[in-house]
Amino acid sequence: MLCIAEQTFTSRLFTGTGKFSSPAVMQQAIEASGSGLVTLAMKRINLHQHSDPTVEHLQQLDIRLLPNTAGAKDAADAVYAAQLGRELLGTHWVKLEVHPDQRYLLPDPIETLKAAEQLVALGFVVLPYCSADPVLCKRLEEVGCAAVMPLAAPIGSNRGLLTREFLQIIAEQATVPVVVDAGIGKPSEAMAVMEMGIDAVLVNSAIASARQPVTMARAFAQAVATGRMAFESGLGPVHRHALPSSPDADFLEHL
Amino acid sequence: MLCIAEQTFTSRLFTGTGKFSSPAVMQQAIEASGSGLVTLAMKRINLHQHSDPTVEHLQQLDIRLLPNTAGAKDAADAVYAAQLGRELLGTHWVKLEVHPDQRYLLPDPIETLKAAEQLVALGFVVLPYCSADPVLCKRLEEVGCAAVMPLAAPIGSNRGLLTREFLQIIAEQATVPVVVDAGIGKPSEAMAVMEMGIDAVLVNSAIASARQPVTMARAFAQAVATGRMAFESGLGPVHRHALPSSPDADFLEHL
Amino acid sequence: MLCIAEQTFTSRLFTGTGKFSSPAVMQQAIEASGSGLVTLAMKRINLHQHSDPTVEHLQQLDIRLLPNTAGAKDAADAVYAAQLGRELLGTHWVKLEVHPDQRYLLPDPIETLKAAEQLVALGFVVLPYCSADPVLCKRLEEVGCAAVMPLAAPIGSNRGLLTREFLQIIAEQATVPVVVDAGIGKPSEAMAVMEMGIDAVLVNSAIASARQPVTMARAFAQAVATGRMAFESGLGPVHRHALPSSPDADFLEHL
Amino acid sequence: MLCIAEQTFTSRLFTGTGKFSSPAVMQQAIEASGSGLVTLAMKRINLHQHSDPTVEHLQQLDIRLLPNTAGAKDAADAVYAAQLGRELLGTHWVKLEVHPDQRYLLPDPIETLKAAEQLVALGFVVLPYCSADPVLCKRLEEVGCAAVMPLAAPIGSNRGLLTREFLQIIAEQATVPVVVDAGIGKPSEAMAVMEMGIDAVLVNSAIASARQPVTMARAFAQAVATGRMAFESGLGPVHRHALPSSPDADFLEHL
Repeated sequence: MLCIAEQTFTSRLFTGTGKFSSPAVMQQAIEASGSGLVTLAMKRINLHQHSDPTVEHLQQLDIRLLPNTAGAKDAADAVYAAQLGRELLGTHWVKLEVHPDQRYLLPDPIETLKAAEQLVALGFVVLPYCSADPVLCKRLEEVGCAAVMPLAAPIGSNRGLLTREFLQIIAEQATVPVVVDAGIGKPSEAMAVMEMGIDAVLVNSAIASARQPVTMARAFAQAVATGRMAFESGLGPVHRHALPSSPDADFLEHL
Repeated sequence: MLCIAEQTFTSRLFTGTGKFSSPAVMQQAIEASGSGLVTLAMKRINLHQHSDPTVEHLQQLDIRLLPNTAGAKDAADAVYAAQLGRELLGTHWVKLEVHPDQRYLLPDPIETLKAAEQLVALGFVVLPYCSADPVLCKRLEEVGCAAVMPLAAPIGSNRGLLTREFLQIIAEQATVPVVVDAGIGKPSEAMAVMEMGIDAVLVNSAIASARQPVTMARAFAQAVATGRMAFESGLGPVHRHALPSSPDADFLEHL
Repeated sequence: MLCIAEQTFTSRLFTGTGKFSSPAVMQQAIEASGSGLVTLAMKRINLHQHSDPTVEHLQQLDIRLLPNTAGAKDAADAVYAAQLGRELLGTHWVKLEVHPDQRYLLPDPIETLKAAEQLVALGFVVLPYCSADPVLCKRLEEVGCAAVMPLAAPIGSNRGLLTREFLQIIAEQATVPVVVDAGIGKPSEAMAVMEMGIDAVLVNSAIASARQPVTMARAFAQAVATGRMAFESGLGPVHRHALPSSPDADFLEHL
Repeated sequence: MLCIAEQTFTSRLFTGTGKFSSPAVMQQAIEASGSGLVTLAMKRINLHQHSDPTVEHLQQLDIRLLPNTAGAKDAADAVYAAQLGRELLGTHWVKLEVHPDQRYLLPDPIETLKAAEQLVALGFVVLPYCSADPVLCKRLEEVGCAAVMPLAAPIGSNRGLLTREFLQIIAEQATVPVVVDAGIGKPSEAMAVMEMGIDAVLVNSAIASARQPVTMARAFAQAVATGRMAFESGLGPVHRHALPSSPDADFLEHL
C-alpha cells in the first residue's frame, strides 16, 4: 500500500478543490474519487470570515487535507503560505508550489528547492510540485521531501503525458513516492501513469471541468486502481511485427 | 447497452483464445474478463479428434463463441472456415479475417469485402477485421456486416493506438458498432479507445502475454468499463496554456 | 535516381496546383520546388473556354503534367476523368483519386483498385492515391500500377505523419516506387518521410497555404533532397539511455 | 543572422567533437557541417602531452571553439573545467554542463545556475546545457547567460524531440538565443526545431554515429538552414478535416 511520511493511503488517486461549480459538487466528487489526500490553495481561504464554505465541506470527509502554496512567487511566499495552512487547518503537511510565471504556472526549481529545505527544517511534511526533471527530484528527495510531484503538462491544461520519458526515469531513480501532478486530462492518462509503476497521481481540473464531475471522479478512481493492477500483473512485451494469436495449425491444408 | 445483431452485451470487452499457457488459464482469464463474446480460430480446432480441449473449456463459460477465419488467404478460404465454424460450433456468427501477409497479418480489404458479401448472403452475422480505413468500414457496413473491427496496430504487437485519428473518423461515421481489434497492449490503451466513444474493444495477446493473465484480464475489464463511464461523463476541454486550479484570490497581497 | 514508368526524376518532390492565390504564384512556386511531376485536377479545367490559365502557366514549365481524378466518386467517374486528361493534356499518366466522402476526402480502396485495373488495361500509367494499407498497396502493384501513393493524413489537413508505422511497412514490401501523398504540412515531415527510405513525396496545400509559397516550395525541395541524403548516409541508432559524447577520460581525477 | 554575445554565426547548426572514429573524420564532418561553433570536452584533452590531436585538427578550421565542462558533478568542477579551457584554448566562451548522474547525463539545475553565476562574474560567455524547463531558462538568462541550451532528449540517445511543448514555451519567453542541445537524432528533428522558430541546434552524436558522418553532417547543415527558411516563410495552418486542393468546379456534373 502507498505510504507517505508513515501514513498509508488506500487510494493512489489524490485530488484538489479548485474549479468546481459549487462546494457541494466538490464534496460529492471528492467522495466519489475515494481520495484520501486533498489539496487546497491557501490563497482561496477567506481570512476575514469566520468560516470558509470549502473547508466546511471538506471537514465532513474522511480525508487528510493538504494545503498548497499556489500563488507563491518565491520561497518566502511559499513558507508563509505553508505556515498559514498549519495555523488555520492544523496540519503540517504542505504541497509546495512556487510558480512565478502566470501563463503556464510552471514551477521554479530554484525557489522550490530553497523553500523545501526551509519547510523541512520547520517540521513540515513537504510534497513539492516540480518539473519532470530527474536530477531536481533527487535533490528534493535529498533535502528531506516526503514525496516528489513532477508534472505531466501545464496545470489545468488537460494535455496529458507530455513528459512520459522523464517520468519513467524519475520512477527508476526515486526512493520516495512519486506523485504525478498537473496536466492529466483523461482517466486513461492517469491509468498510463500507474502502468509505468509510478506511485500515485493527483487530478483536479480534469474532474472539475468534466460535464459530470462526480462520475468522472469515480472513473479516475477506477482508472488509477486498475492501472496499478495492470502494473502488478506484468504487461506483455511490445513487438514490431505481428504475432499471430492463433499460430497452432493450418486447417486450410486439410482442403 | 451494446447491441450487435440484436444481441446485447453487458461488457464492451471481447476476448480471444490464442497464446494462453494452458486451456485452464484461458478459461480463468476469460471468466475474469467478463467478456460475453470470445473468438476462436477455426484453424486451431483439431478436426481429427472427438473433442477439442479449448472448446471444452469454453463451453463451461456463459459466453457466445465467435469463430474466426484466421489463416484465410482469400475470400474462398474465409467462407470455408466460416462454414466449418457453423457446423462444428453451431453458430452463424463469424469474425472474418483475411490476411495474405504472414509478417504483419494485415487484413486484405478486397477479399474481406468480397467474403463479407458472400457470408451475409449465406445468413452469417459477420464481424470483419479490417484496416482503420473509414471508407472501407462504410463499404463493409453497406454490404450488411453487423459491426466493423478496425485495427489499432498489427495483431499481437501490443503497440497500441497507432491509428487513433482514423478510428475517430470511423466512430463519427459508422452506423453499426465499431469494435477496435488487434494491437492493444495495455489497459490504458483500451480505455482510451472507450473514451473516444468507440463501442467495444477486442483484446487477446495483451492478456495472454501478461505475467499474470487472470488479473490482467480483470484490469482490461475494468479499464473498458471505466473508459465508457469517462466518455459518458463528458471529458473536459484541452488547453494550450495552464489554467490555475485555484484562481480565486490572492492571500499574498494581504502581506 | 527515382524512376517511375521508365521516366527518371531528378527531384523526389512532386507538387500540385490547387489553392494558390493566383496562377502566377503557382508557376513560381512550382518552379522553386524543382518538381518534375505536377498534378492537376481535371475538374478544375474549364471545358467551355478556349484556354485555361492554369494549364497555360504550367506549359511554360519543364515538367510532366499528372492529371488527377479528384472529385470522382467511383471507378467510372475516375476512368472518365482520366480519359478527359489524356485528350485535353495529351498524357497517359494519371493520378487516380476516388473519394466518395466529402468531409475527409479519404480514398475508396475498392473503387480505386477497380479503376486502376481498367486504366492499366487502357494503357495508362497509373499512380493511385490510397490509404496507408500495405495489403492494398500490394494489390495495386499487382494490377500494374506504376507507383503507389499512400496518405500521411487527410488531404489538405497539414497534420503530418499520422500513418508512419504503416508507411514503413509499405516501404519494406513495395516493389514499385512509394510516393507519400496528402497531409504533409511541414518540410520536416517531408524530410522524415525521405529518412524512412520512401521514394518520393507529393506536397500541395502546405506550399500553397504558406505565407510565402515560393520560399516554402524551395524549403520543401531542400527538405526532400536532404532527407534522401540522410537516408543514404545511414542514420545512427537510437538508445534508451544517454551515451556520453565525450567518454574518454576524466580530468577531474587529476585534481 | 544569429548573434550570441555580439558574435554572429552564419550557420544555426553547432556541432561537437565526441565519438568520431578518428580526428580526421571529425575534421571533415565539422567542415561539411558549416558549423561556426564547435564544442570540445575539457576532460578529453590530454594534459600530459605537448599537443592534442583533436585540438590540432580543430585549429585548422575556421570555427570558434567552445570548451565544455562535461564530467563536472557540481559547480566547483565546472568552474575549474571552464578555467582550464580558458587557459589551454584561449577562449572565455564555455558550454556549461553539470550532470551528476552517469546513466542519463541529465543536467543539475541547481549547480548549473550556481556555476553560471560564478562564471559570468569571472568574465565568461556562458552557454548552459539545461533541462527543457522554462522557469530555469529564465533564471539562467537573468544571471547573465549569453544563451540557453535546453535538451531535446538524453545526450547521445538520438531519441528526438521529447520536450517539444516545453521548448515551444522557452522559445516564446526567452530574450537570449535558444540552442536545442542533446538528443537530436535525425536531420528532420533538427529541422522541426528550426520550424518552431528556435534559434539554433547543437548536434554531435547523430553525426558521429551515422554510417557516413561527413554526408550526414552536410544533411544536418541543410536541414537546419531549410528549417529556418520554412519558419520565415510562414507554415500553413493545421486542420482537423480534409481541405480539397482542388475545390473549384465539378466536371462530373457535365456528364
